[in-house]
Amino acid sequence: MPELRQNIITRDWVVIARERALRPDQFVCAAQPELKKHDVEKNCPFCPGNEAMAEEEIFRMEEKNRWTLRLVPNKFPAVTPAGNVERNMNGIYRSMDAFGYHDVLIEHRKHNYTLIDMSHAEMNSILDAYRRRYRMLKKDKRIESIIIFRNHGKSAGTSLVHPHSQIVGMPVVPHQLRIRTDIARSYFDDNGQCVFCKTLQEELSSGERLVLETKHFAAFIPYAALSAFHLWIFPKRHMASFGEVDKDELDDLALNLQTVLKKLHKGLNNPDYNYTIRSIPVHEYNSEYFHWYLSIIPRLTTAAGFELGSGMFINTAIPEDSAKFLREVEI
Amino acid sequence: MPELRQNIITRDWVVIARERALRPDQFVCAAQPELKKHDVEKNCPFCPGNEAMAEEEIFRMEEKNRWTLRLVPNKFPAVTPAGNVERNMNGIYRSMDAFGYHDVLIEHRKHNYTLIDMSHAEMNSILDAYRRRYRMLKKDKRIESIIIFRNHGKSAGTSLVHPHSQIVGMPVVPHQLRIRTDIARSYFDDNGQCVFCKTLQEELSSGERLVLETKHFAAFIPYAALSAFHLWIFPKRHMASFGEVDKDELDDLALNLQTVLKKLHKGLNNPDYNYTIRSIPVHEYNSEYFHWYLSIIPRLTTAAGFELGSGMFINTAIPEDSAKFLREVEI
Repeated sequence: MPELRQNIITRDWVVIARERALRPDQFVCAAQPELKKHDVEKNCPFCPGNEAMAEEEIFRMEEKNRWTLRLVPNKFPAVTPAGNVERNMNGIYRSMDAFGYHDVLIEHRKHNYTLIDMSHAEMNSILDAYRRRYRMLKKDKRIESIIIFRNHGKSAGTSLVHPHSQIVGMPVVPHQLRIRTDIARSYFDDNGQCVFCKTLQEELSSGERLVLETKHFAAFIPYAALSAFHLWIFPKRHMASFGEVDKDELDDLALNLQTVLKKLHKGLNNPDYNYTIRSIPVHEYNSEYFHWYLSIIPRLTTAAGFELGSGMFINTAIPEDSAKFLREVEI
Repeated sequence: MPELRQNIITRDWVVIARERALRPDQFVCAAQPELKKHDVEKNCPFCPGNEAMAEEEIFRMEEKNRWTLRLVPNKFPAVTPAGNVERNMNGIYRSMDAFGYHDVLIEHRKHNYTLIDMSHAEMNSILDAYRRRYRMLKKDKRIESIIIFRNHGKSAGTSLVHPHSQIVGMPVVPHQLRIRTDIARSYFDDNGQCVFCKTLQEELSSGERLVLETKHFAAFIPYAALSAFHLWIFPKRHMASFGEVDKDELDDLALNLQTVLKKLHKGLNNPDYNYTIRSIPVHEYNSEYFHWYLSIIPRLTTAAGFELGSGMFINTAIPEDSAKFLREVEI
């Protein structure tokens, strides 16, 4: 009998397709041609020597007088610092300038390194750069929400091989985020507790869907995972925004995230993935009900008409089996 | 300057990426190997002669003692008629049997016909079969929502070539649909009018985004289309559910939908697409605020981290340009 499970954070119902479920090892990706590891690609705008091809740098980190990572504005931004946040009415419709900041974090000097090739210190400095930019963007009072994300591989929408993440400061609260904060607030009103803290407690005590627990973070497959090997990493301390994370926690997140990515890489043969860090809208101070988290979405299946039409998801991987599989991947 | 537009039905903000927008003809798909047109494929479970490979038929339409279309249960259903609709609590989580109906409509005898190859009468009978099944499913009081959808092409998630649609009766109201009905009800409370009727009025009077107006339907690109060539077809008469459509309207919808699909096929070289018919939850009687509609989503671009992370969309096609392009495609 297939099962419907409700995702407690999004309230989506997910079909856990037990009868047609695949074994975890059936999600292993086809071998991809291994890219030759080389340091510099002539035409890559993110490679050392090509700095002039990118937009003017916002900040960099250095070692021995050479940059180790750089933050630059996206050359093809979704939102731009020009313009204002006034709404315009066009008949019955609402529009506004796409004001905001859309940055690219060039994560490493080496052209085809990925996060799993990096040292712990390098991984740590990427997360540190996220936090630094988050805190900078938060100061602009016109920014309502900040998202951080990374695309790995073609089916995840990457256009450039050189390792990079993106950070976007937006002048609106996306409706999807508003829905999630509304759900979390209702849960708090009913239960006097943050729904994320409660989830974490449940996952740590049952352990069934846990993939990796470190000092400050827990990585697990959600009870109603929307798709195969969908993962959440929650901080153990209650914090509504990524900007609040401290040095110790960042260091531990570097360990947790990189280990989980290595397990995915090894266990599923380098799947394409997106990850994203979700925080409360910037100006929400009453933050006892929301909790920032990192969501990893491996791109192992394609959403079809069922998902588009219903907004419901069919997951052909059993969350408990996927978690066990990843727990057992030795890296 | 890129522009943010708010989708009035979903309240999503969409980035209309003016600077990096592509011309409509830049969305034309690469040529695909033309399938040999043949009537029967030996191993296809939907082909005449292989009826025993599919599940037991629910209904068929016939001509000269041969079936012209058949409705059968999906062999790999997301939801099944066994089970019940009681919720189970697993610690803090909610689950239930995936009760429901998941049918496949085999649209035609010929193995690799598509909707654009069919006669008007054939197209009409497909829509008639949708309506017939919609009305049957509605009688089961445990069914809360009914969606109808069709996947065309590999990137739209089709696994079988033989032309078919799917109809699903679900035991829950998907959260996405609940959000839309909430938005529509708020709009009605504020404006005393159905937001879909109002949108239709605006689109018919401006004509800027109109693709095809027929007697009872209007096809247009939404003001804040979520992706390139995303299309809506609205009935002109206010109706909250597809089950209410009458014979005359069905006939006109067959004309409108098939013409729009032909324009997409010719103008964009047979793009993959999904379409879906959205209705109000089955048991909502106070239906002055919601309006059923058909949504076509050509699969021309890939959602990446930005979309997954923010729930906002970046559209690199200008809705007005896409509409003009499709209006001018002669079929």
